[in-house]
Amino acid sequence: MELSEILEIIAQDLEEVEKVIEENIQSEVPLVYEISRYILGSGGKRLRPSVLILSSGTCGVNKGMEIIASAAALELIHTATLLHDDVVDEANLRRGKTASNVIWGNKASVLVGDFMLARALGLIQSCGNLELIKAVTDAAAKLAEGQVLEVMSGQSMIELSEKVCFDIIEHKTASLIESCGKVGAIIAGAREDVKEAIGNYGLNLGIAFQLVDDALDYSSKEEEVGKGVCQDFKEGKITLPLVYALRRASTREKTRLIEILQRDGFKNEELDFVLNVVEKYKGVEQTKTEAKKFADKARSSISNLPANNHKSSLQHLADYVVERRM
Amino acid sequence: MELSEILEIIAQDLEEVEKVIEENIQSEVPLVYEISRYILGSGGKRLRPSVLILSSGTCGVNKGMEIIASAAALELIHTATLLHDDVVDEANLRRGKTASNVIWGNKASVLVGDFMLARALGLIQSCGNLELIKAVTDAAAKLAEGQVLEVMSGQSMIELSEKVCFDIIEHKTASLIESCGKVGAIIAGAREDVKEAIGNYGLNLGIAFQLVDDALDYSSKEEEVGKGVCQDFKEGKITLPLVYALRRASTREKTRLIEILQRDGFKNEELDFVLNVVEKYKGVEQTKTEAKKFADKARSSISNLPANNHKSSLQHLADYVVERRM
Repeated sequence: MELSEILEIIAQDLEEVEKVIEENIQSEVPLVYEISRYILGSGGKRLRPSVLILSSGTCGVNKGMEIIASAAALELIHTATLLHDDVVDEANLRRGKTASNVIWGNKASVLVGDFMLARALGLIQSCGNLELIKAVTDAAAKLAEGQVLEVMSGQSMIELSEKVCFDIIEHKTASLIESCGKVGAIIAGAREDVKEAIGNYGLNLGIAFQLVDDALDYSSKEEEVGKGVCQDFKEGKITLPLVYALRRASTREKTRLIEILQRDGFKNEELDFVLNVVEKYKGVEQTKTEAKKFADKARSSISNLPANNHKSSLQHLADYVVERRM
Repeated sequence: MELSEILEIIAQDLEEVEKVIEENIQSEVPLVYEISRYILGSGGKRLRPSVLILSSGTCGVNKGMEIIASAAALELIHTATLLHDDVVDEANLRRGKTASNVIWGNKASVLVGDFMLARALGLIQSCGNLELIKAVTDAAAKLAEGQVLEVMSGQSMIELSEKVCFDIIEHKTASLIESCGKVGAIIAGAREDVKEAIGNYGLNLGIAFQLVDDALDYSSKEEEVGKGVCQDFKEGKITLPLVYALRRASTREKTRLIEILQRDGFKNEELDFVLNVVEKYKGVEQTKTEAKKFADKARSSISNLPANNHKSSLQHLADYVVERRM
C-alpha cells in the first residue's frame, strides 16, 4: 500500500496539523519563519503526527484540538532536532535539499531549532494535560541523550557494536515515535496497558523505520533517497549495514575500511570499495531483515486491541515502513 | 551589600537547588555530565534561582519542593542557553574559563544544551502546575526568539538602534528573570496583580543586570569580568555603550569604528581606539545610568507589597546588580 492510501482516513487531520504548525512558526524575526518553513517543507513524511492521530483513533477518539496540537508539537520537536543534527553532523544535504546550516550557518540552525522546540512546548502545555507533558518531555530528554551518545560513539570507536547501534536508534528515533503512540492513547483516555501497548508499537515501528533508513543509505541513488549515497559513512556515522559487513569482512578489507573511515575526504573509488564490501557481505539485506522483525513486533504489540480502521492503518504503516524505497 | 549577605536568608535553599541540579545532570553518557558540570561550575551567580526563591518568600511561601525544583530548572534553562550561545558567538571564554565549544567542539555544546533543556522541562513538569509550565515555556520561547534577533541584527546592521538593543536584552536576559519572579509568585499562590508586580520586578532587574554586563565589557580588566575586554565587540555584538558612543562620535571616528567592526581580527591598537572612543563619549557611564533607572523600576514594581525579609532582599538585589564590578 502507498503511504497516501494508509493515511487516507486521517488526511483531514494531517491538514489541520499543517495549519497549526504554520501558525506556530510565525515570528517577528522574518528569518526564523523562513528557515522553519524551509526545513518543514523539505518533504518529511509526517510519520510522527500520523502515529499519534492513528493511535488516538485506535483507542476510539478521532477528533479534538488536543490531538492536532500535540501532533503538531511532536513534528516540531522532530524538526528542531533535524536542525540541530545538521549542525552536529556538518551535513550538506537534508532530504535532497541543501541542509539549513549550509545556507544560513550553524548559528541560525541552532537558534531556530531552539525556537521550534520552545513553540512545541508551548503547544504541548496548551493541551493542559500533565501526563501528556510528561510523556513528551521524557522523550525529548531521551532524544537529547541519544544524540550525544551517537556523537561520542562515532568519535571513540570505529567498530561500533550492534548493541550500541540499537541503543542510538532507540534514543534518537524510536523514543519520540513511542511517545507519539503513548500521547495518542493518553488523549483518548486509554487504560494503562493500552497506553503501553501502543507505546511499544511506536517504539518498534521507530526502530524498523530507522533501520530501513540506514539500509537505504547504502543502497539508494542520491536522487531517490534525498541525501547522498553513503551519507552516513561520509559523516563518520557507523550504522548497522556497515557493522554487519565488518563482522564478516576479511582482515585486509576491514583495515582498509577503517583507514578510509578515519580520513576526512574520500575519493569515488574509495566509496565504491565501501559500497562493494557492504554489498558483498549483505549488510543491507541483514539490516532489512532486522527491520522486518521490528515491524512484526510493532504489529503484534497492538494485536490484542479491538479492530477498527485506525488500527488497520497502524498495521499497514508497519508494512509500509519496511517496504518503502525512499 | 555583598551578594552573599543579600542571599544569606536563602543560602540553605540555594544549596538544595545545587543538589537538585547535580541530580539532574547525571547521564549514562559520562561526557554529558562532564560538560554540564564544567559549565555549571563556572562561577555563575545563581541570579535566577535567587529571584525565584525570594519572590516566593516575598509572597509568604518559604519552603517546598516546588520552589527548589523550579529554581533548579530555570538555572538549567539559563545554562543550556549559555552552551548554545557559545556555539553561536564562537566565544573563546565564558566566565573566565575556556568556553565549552572550544574544549569539546560545537557538536557537544549543542547537544548537551539540548540535554539540559530536556532535563529542565522534566523538572518543571514534575511540579505538576500548568500555570508554572506556561510561564516557563513562554519565557523559553521569548529567549529563543531573542537569540535569533541578536544574531540577525549583528549581521544586518552596523548601527544598531537603542530600541533594538533593549529588545534583545528583554528577550535574551530579562524575560527569563521575569518568569523567575512570576513562578515564585505562582508557587506561593499569589493574586494576579502580585504575580504581575513581581514579574515586572524580574523584568526590570534583568534589564539592569544585562546593561551592567554590557557596561563592564567596556570597562573591566579581563581577570575581573571573566571574559575578554571588549568581548562583545570582538564577537561583532553591538551593545549600548557602543551605540551611545557612536551617536556622539565624529564622522571620522564613526567610519573607523565601523571599518574595524566589519573586520574579522583586530590589532591591539584598534581595540584601544574602540575603548578610547567609548570612554571619550561616556558610553559606559550612560549605560550605567540607564541600568540605575531600571533597578529603580524593579524596586518600585514591588514597593506596594507587604514588607518582609525576602522583599528586603529583592530590594537589595536591585542595588547589588547595578553596583557590582564583575
